[in-house]
Amino acid sequence: MSTRWPTLIEDGDGVLILDQTRLLREAVMLRLASLEDAANAIRIMQVRGAPLIGVTAAYGVALGLADDATDARLCRVIETLDATRPTAVNLHWALARMRRVLEESAPATRCDMAWQEARAIAEEDKQANAAIGRHGLPLIERISGDIDAVNVMTHCNAGRLATVEHGTALAPVYAAHAAGIAVHVWISETRPRNQGLLTAWELREAGVPHTLLADNAAGLLMMQGKVDLVIVGADRIAANGDTANKIGTYLKALAARAHGVPFYVAAPLSTIDFACPSGVAIPIEERAADELGAGEVPVVNPAFDVTPAALISGVVSERGIARAAELGQWQP
Amino acid sequence: MSTRWPTLIEDGDGVLILDQTRLLREAVMLRLASLEDAANAIRIMQVRGAPLIGVTAAYGVALGLADDATDARLCRVIETLDATRPTAVNLHWALARMRRVLEESAPATRCDMAWQEARAIAEEDKQANAAIGRHGLPLIERISGDIDAVNVMTHCNAGRLATVEHGTALAPVYAAHAAGIAVHVWISETRPRNQGLLTAWELREAGVPHTLLADNAAGLLMMQGKVDLVIVGADRIAANGDTANKIGTYLKALAARAHGVPFYVAAPLSTIDFACPSGVAIPIEERAADELGAGEVPVVNPAFDVTPAALISGVVSERGIARAAELGQWQP
Repeated sequence: MSTRWPTLIEDGDGVLILDQTRLLREAVMLRLASLEDAANAIRIMQVRGAPLIGVTAAYGVALGLADDATDARLCRVIETLDATRPTAVNLHWALARMRRVLEESAPATRCDMAWQEARAIAEEDKQANAAIGRHGLPLIERISGDIDAVNVMTHCNAGRLATVEHGTALAPVYAAHAAGIAVHVWISETRPRNQGLLTAWELREAGVPHTLLADNAAGLLMMQGKVDLVIVGADRIAANGDTANKIGTYLKALAARAHGVPFYVAAPLSTIDFACPSGVAIPIEERAADELGAGEVPVVNPAFDVTPAALISGVVSERGIARAAELGQWQP
Repeated sequence: MSTRWPTLIEDGDGVLILDQTRLLREAVMLRLASLEDAANAIRIMQVRGAPLIGVTAAYGVALGLADDATDARLCRVIETLDATRPTAVNLHWALARMRRVLEESAPATRCDMAWQEARAIAEEDKQANAAIGRHGLPLIERISGDIDAVNVMTHCNAGRLATVEHGTALAPVYAAHAAGIAVHVWISETRPRNQGLLTAWELREAGVPHTLLADNAAGLLMMQGKVDLVIVGADRIAANGDTANKIGTYLKALAARAHGVPFYVAAPLSTIDFACPSGVAIPIEERAADELGAGEVPVVNPAFDVTPAALISGVVSERGIARAAELGQWQP
């Protein structure tokens, strides 16, 4: 265990997660010991970020099979985890993969196999994100020749805290920072859950210069020429390239287009839902009204929006960079 | 005095204002008795909204001349108030008007004249906003034939709380409500100061249905076809129609354009700065970092952005509705 807090790490017959609901006040590793612990951690966003949700769900299957690994139990475990959050497809992808592997194995070895497969998913997440960093680095590098520091705008948190390691949208930023390229990150607050503060937390940890803004300020900054590049993560990318990501992403994409700022989505292949033809088919999670803290005021609180493929300059995955309309080349 | 809390009302040799920094917790009328009280109330946003700032500044001149109405004092009083906030031109407009009237009068009668002129400005604000309501009403009325309720999106608070009475952006909404047309208002939270909650407060008071959203959700709602019309206020409209308004307005204008939603600016003529050729010449106030409540995180906090005239369907003033590019017809 390094001196940095890991987002998720095995701990005997349980899993330790960094509790992201408490992180800004205190760094606390929380132990998940059961299916219910894992489902709850995803539901109340103690873990969040599409890739990390997927990994946590995979471990949740292993935890859920500890005492009973029958077919019926496997089915119930997967159903429980599948119902925690609707939009991020990595959750459903990881559970489908676990089901595929575990259905073929005998109940006696199932729990061990579940741990093994969850471990593989976690390890692949690290490697995919490191590759996203390598593939995305040139996007920053080629701008850096002309200016003092490359100003990258992101939205929400798609950094290491949203993954097992490296992050998705921030992976190219970390790669640039490691390569000695001066980078500065514009962080949107990301109401209503303020995940921008998580991004500030990890960029500070990494020593990457950054500035926080109200979500409302993104358009002005682009109009003022203060943004060179936008990179965001994704919760689900449809086959046609339409991308669901944290609510507010779409407004940034519109502003980027208006000012000729390149707008990239960075995500592992597990975020691409080839079975989903376009953005209108992506379910949008409606979260509790109290997240806005407005008391008795009637509230609408969609957690994601959809950015049309036409506004996306490219998608960065572990396979490279593709135009949003040409993701078919990556279909397994 | 009606049973509703007034935003600003004379009180002997002082002025009572509804303290908008405390309004969501408690309705408190605060007495302004001096120049310093008035300047401070504007600076820390106990009064806010371009028209109400202008009226408060006018009364601030009267308060500032109580003990000393010499030319030198008049000059200092106006300078002090002029420096409180840079973007809303109504402040500077009201002070220029007070200066013009008072410079021509003898010091002995100056204080009385200041009260009289401030009163006139307040009265004209009410009448202008009532006229904005009448002129804007058909924008809502002509949509209402086709649907159950007209969904109007606004931003920040440009309702009665931003004025002496009636509001600007909300004046047409109130006129429609009074005419028996079903209206529902989408209210953006309006980070970082959350003036959307002020809008919710006054719409509840008026019995107009409304729903609060995170600023980030505006694009999704437009994409989903849930917004029929956007009406916002303004802090300064340049001669070419470019409009400075609360930060985040521009992102709504971009989304409205993307989805063919009409986007109107409602403001009295005192908000049009004919001496300002275009949006780039409008000073953008940068407010304190602590408004974002992010502790030690580096912050940028511009309070306004500029929406280009090309994105504005029309400007509603007390004179009627004009295309943003044709405001010259209203030049005095």
